[in-house]
Amino acid sequence: MDIAALREAHPDHWMKAAAIRTLTLDAVAAANSGHSGMPMGMADVATVLYEKHLNFDPKAPHWPDRDRFILSAGHGSMLLYSLLYLTGYEDFPLSQLKNFRQWGAYTAGHPEYGHGRGVEVTTGPLGQGISNSVGFAIAEEIQRARFGKSVVNHYTYVMAGDGCLMEGISHEAIGLAGMQELSHLIVFWDNNNITIDGTVDIADKTNQPQRFEAAGWHVQEIDGHDPIAIDKAITAAKKDQRPSMIACKTHIALGHAAQDTSKGHGALTDAEQLQAAKENYGWPYGPFEVPDKIKSQWEAMAKRGQDAHAAWHDRFNKLSGTKQAEFQRAYDLEPPKKLSATIRAFKKQASESGAKLATRASSEKVLEVINPIMPETIGGSADLTGSNNTKTSDLGVFNPDNRAGRYIYYGVREHGMAAAMNGMVLHGGARPYGGTFMCFTDYARGAMRLSALMRIPTTYVMTHDSIGLGEDGPTHQPVEHLAMLRATPNTHVFRPADTVEVAESWECALTSKTTPTVLALSRQGLPAVRKEHKTKNLSAQGAYVLADAEGKRQVILLATGSEVSVAMAARDILQAEGIGTRVVSMPCWELFEEQDEKYRKRVLPAGPVRVAVEAGIRFGWDRWLFGERGRREKSGFVGMHGFGASAPANELFEQFGITGQAVADKAKSLIK
Amino acid sequence: MDIAALREAHPDHWMKAAAIRTLTLDAVAAANSGHSGMPMGMADVATVLYEKHLNFDPKAPHWPDRDRFILSAGHGSMLLYSLLYLTGYEDFPLSQLKNFRQWGAYTAGHPEYGHGRGVEVTTGPLGQGISNSVGFAIAEEIQRARFGKSVVNHYTYVMAGDGCLMEGISHEAIGLAGMQELSHLIVFWDNNNITIDGTVDIADKTNQPQRFEAAGWHVQEIDGHDPIAIDKAITAAKKDQRPSMIACKTHIALGHAAQDTSKGHGALTDAEQLQAAKENYGWPYGPFEVPDKIKSQWEAMAKRGQDAHAAWHDRFNKLSGTKQAEFQRAYDLEPPKKLSATIRAFKKQASESGAKLATRASSEKVLEVINPIMPETIGGSADLTGSNNTKTSDLGVFNPDNRAGRYIYYGVREHGMAAAMNGMVLHGGARPYGGTFMCFTDYARGAMRLSALMRIPTTYVMTHDSIGLGEDGPTHQPVEHLAMLRATPNTHVFRPADTVEVAESWECALTSKTTPTVLALSRQGLPAVRKEHKTKNLSAQGAYVLADAEGKRQVILLATGSEVSVAMAARDILQAEGIGTRVVSMPCWELFEEQDEKYRKRVLPAGPVRVAVEAGIRFGWDRWLFGERGRREKSGFVGMHGFGASAPANELFEQFGITGQAVADKAKSLIK
Repeated sequence: MDIAALREAHPDHWMKAAAIRTLTLDAVAAANSGHSGMPMGMADVATVLYEKHLNFDPKAPHWPDRDRFILSAGHGSMLLYSLLYLTGYEDFPLSQLKNFRQWGAYTAGHPEYGHGRGVEVTTGPLGQGISNSVGFAIAEEIQRARFGKSVVNHYTYVMAGDGCLMEGISHEAIGLAGMQELSHLIVFWDNNNITIDGTVDIADKTNQPQRFEAAGWHVQEIDGHDPIAIDKAITAAKKDQRPSMIACKTHIALGHAAQDTSKGHGALTDAEQLQAAKENYGWPYGPFEVPDKIKSQWEAMAKRGQDAHAAWHDRFNKLSGTKQAEFQRAYDLEPPKKLSATIRAFKKQASESGAKLATRASSEKVLEVINPIMPETIGGSADLTGSNNTKTSDLGVFNPDNRAGRYIYYGVREHGMAAAMNGMVLHGGARPYGGTFMCFTDYARGAMRLSALMRIPTTYVMTHDSIGLGEDGPTHQPVEHLAMLRATPNTHVFRPADTVEVAESWECALTSKTTPTVLALSRQGLPAVRKEHKTKNLSAQGAYVLADAEGKRQVILLATGSEVSVAMAARDILQAEGIGTRVVSMPCWELFEEQDEKYRKRVLPAGPVRVAVEAGIRFGWDRWLFGERGRREKSGFVGMHGFGASAPANELFEQFGITGQAVADKAKSLIK
Repeated sequence: MDIAALREAHPDHWMKAAAIRTLTLDAVAAANSGHSGMPMGMADVATVLYEKHLNFDPKAPHWPDRDRFILSAGHGSMLLYSLLYLTGYEDFPLSQLKNFRQWGAYTAGHPEYGHGRGVEVTTGPLGQGISNSVGFAIAEEIQRARFGKSVVNHYTYVMAGDGCLMEGISHEAIGLAGMQELSHLIVFWDNNNITIDGTVDIADKTNQPQRFEAAGWHVQEIDGHDPIAIDKAITAAKKDQRPSMIACKTHIALGHAAQDTSKGHGALTDAEQLQAAKENYGWPYGPFEVPDKIKSQWEAMAKRGQDAHAAWHDRFNKLSGTKQAEFQRAYDLEPPKKLSATIRAFKKQASESGAKLATRASSEKVLEVINPIMPETIGGSADLTGSNNTKTSDLGVFNPDNRAGRYIYYGVREHGMAAAMNGMVLHGGARPYGGTFMCFTDYARGAMRLSALMRIPTTYVMTHDSIGLGEDGPTHQPVEHLAMLRATPNTHVFRPADTVEVAESWECALTSKTTPTVLALSRQGLPAVRKEHKTKNLSAQGAYVLADAEGKRQVILLATGSEVSVAMAARDILQAEGIGTRVVSMPCWELFEEQDEKYRKRVLPAGPVRVAVEAGIRFGWDRWLFGERGRREKSGFVGMHGFGASAPANELFEQFGITGQAVADKAKSLIK
């Protein structure tokens, strides 16, 4: 690459971009760790984007109508941190860059949402950012339809690398974006032909432009170091009515000895080579030094966004007070005031009716009362709408002809759905939920973990939550998935037992601000176990005494979801034999864990035999059987010991021995 | 659709295909459950494939050089079961079809590998089959290079639906197949424009032919009900040097009232409609009745394959005895005789050297001695070769110019890699292992679960297995993944502590026939803890006493992997204070669980305080702390309580309090 020619062609631009490149080199050298090549390769694109197009306001990083910039290639985090520092974001002073990748710094190895303001999303696991961006763009469309383009009218820009585009999730994302004609979504592909293992073509020869065209995208191919071409391409992309992909031919680690090599992908820390690169750039300044002139030019880039922000405020203030409040409420993730009363009324009716219902069907009933009062919900399913019971009558379908629709047919794209939902929450103003079979948590794990890590309240409606799924067999029957999800930090896993518990679980999900929720719901019909109305949300305590022992308390049965009624049947058997038996329903372990010792002791006192029953594996249950005042010798588990099988559900419960009789027998065998 | 015209155009073909359609209708009606539409739509393609092309021998379902038929759209299982019955596979008599989806039948809801012979792979989770098929085709190429095309020369045929092609994993698979120019791979796309939620275009408008072309595939588009076109397309596909995709325009549930609707995707059980469809087909026979003439025609289709099989035997017998034995040994998943001695010699050297080494580096050293003596191994990494230490000097890189290479650059495709590896094992003759960061288990879960469910010994090399990963931060630091994997049935999770344990773990992995293995390996250097040579494979017992207490045994420390040396440091502290401390290394919980009570009691006797230390979350540890003669009041855990952070590894261990001192302090606090 002829660096001198680049410098001469656009000297002003060059020096601004060089600031990113040199800050990256200095920070990676200071940390002795990181990824230098990506920021150095994409500095020109970033500079033009920020200078000519991106509407941002460093003083108001949460301004709702800002353009979003998503660094899907999250390992290039120094690109983002450089931009945030150069343009003047308060949370990213130079000291942060000097502490790149150190304990407590906002400048983590990969961008971390919720730490320094200005980072839109946690990226690093490849393919997530580009998939989140589809959710950002959908949320923007829906809110524009609702609040008008005078207050919602911005773009989502993404930088994605070869890794992002090789990941399967990117296929799901671009297919969804193409079908949905998300014209405000613009992706820059850092086309540098380098990954960690070598040149991309040792593993992939996909014609990316053709691939994006096949998915319905507008595609341009440019020299990613030519500021004029970059500017023109962005302008064209904004005009096109399709999502846009701009293939930017770049040189990784531009101007460094490691340029165009896989070594250039990683940490370039050699002092001499670093100095040589700076000389190559015509950058005579010291480590972390950006001369005032260049810094001022960067800070000036914010003016366009700040003016736009001020104008936006004027327009926003013209909305009715109600609309303003509703807009703000949704962005604050505040539930509507009447949610609680609505849930209570629903619970009262449900407990009085006492109907037998699959909890997935109960969930639909709850959504039928919630969705009309929470316009920020966005429902959907990965091609299992009728099975997941996620679509309610009022939502309308979101598509290019109906941007006011709030239901999304995600297609057979579990991972893409999960990532898009994360993007919607991160965009702000949206509370998405989406469904699939619980077993296919496996497909969505990458994004579900990020909901938890980012502390955002995405809701997963996971139906067919056990062998109760029946004939479809073990490929579709979760057995270890409750354990997997419970093992994940900051994740609330609800497995409600009946309609009332479903309503309570949904209330918890819809009032959560920092924790994602998984609702594990049954395929099969379940008898009502909560037949007496309680205004209090008992599920919010995680576990509670559903039915107490009559007579001397000899046994405590612990159960969740579809097995709560199995435990109740066991209780009937035991009580008939004079064995006092308490049933504890445990819809959410994590919330029970958060209760104080006094409450937990009240629910799980020392003494009685304990038997847990759950149509999943035992893994994790020892916490409640042996721990919490329990005793090993007086504890038992009734559930699965391996994978399921293909047969009608009732037969499976019999064959695997998950029955009231089996639970009762187990309890009796433990009573001395 | 003009059924009459189809019948008249090719009457013989029509009736053979009608046998599939009617068996499907009858079986689904009998089960009152299942998926009718796919087999009814793809019956013509299947009939032509079996009649004119597929080399199969129902009497020898495991004949190594058979063509493979993979039903990626596994919900259409009745297509496969019909074919297996019609062509005369012993495990699929009519009684099996009559018991479709019932307890104990081979005719499970989705095809289950390892039950009835003739089913090549468990499918159902969408996108897996097409991704497995890439592994089948790679294994075939490698074995052809090794043993010659006289004994390895067959095709892998796949049927995939819209769902398979929407799943992200399909993108990873077709990108890999295209780059690798897998010419023996032929995919039929059941292009029926229907998924469960409705027509495909409500969720996806991808131009699939263009997409496959972008990935380097040969693409044809045909009428999937025209037997002449089907035959010609298969012939052309076989001739082309690229992998082939044949887009078959079909009508789901052809000839039934539900044709071309999403209802047609599911169970069509209405008796009148069923009868009307049969009349439409000109099929006057009763339920499950296939007239002898038609059955004979189907059975006759096997002749081509049976002749080929006989001829193959003649050619196989011309191989040298050594080659024949090596071929057979690999297909039997038998390790070479000298494996055990090789591992022992390696262990001896390692224990004598006592070098400090990251276990990922130890793993590479082990592979350096294994790969030369196990030509059936196929290594690879999802673009982290240097980090996963998976490539040894002798392997050679598999690519279109070097089919003898045994190392695969999978690209950034964790899920595709896992599924391809499953395909290689299922093909036979191959023992693949592949690496990524342990955190990205999340991306590969869908396929990893299927390794376990299918009972096949795929090996996953998961490096950077804790916060020891350091600066890359919490997106890349597994904390819950050990729990997730341990929760999965039939999965051996090894977390070795040093080079010797790594060698032992590899020996277990390479001798396993029915269980996949996950090796959790450290990024950071670990001191040797096994400094005295033992010929016995101690890790094969799952857990063992690494260092016993000196003096009265007051404490037992339990640890895995990188924390075994932390436990040893704690032991030093405690012993220095006169507190007798045993350290138990637990490289594989599952294998320890399988040991008899006597051994387990010897390792974990009642009495002493127990402290477990692992740089992951506690979930699951209560089994060993409270259970197995443990006591709640005398147990503690030192590890992670949530997600990690971005900082140098040493600092993270300090900050999160996972140190020898912290373990010693915890133990002391528990001693009364």
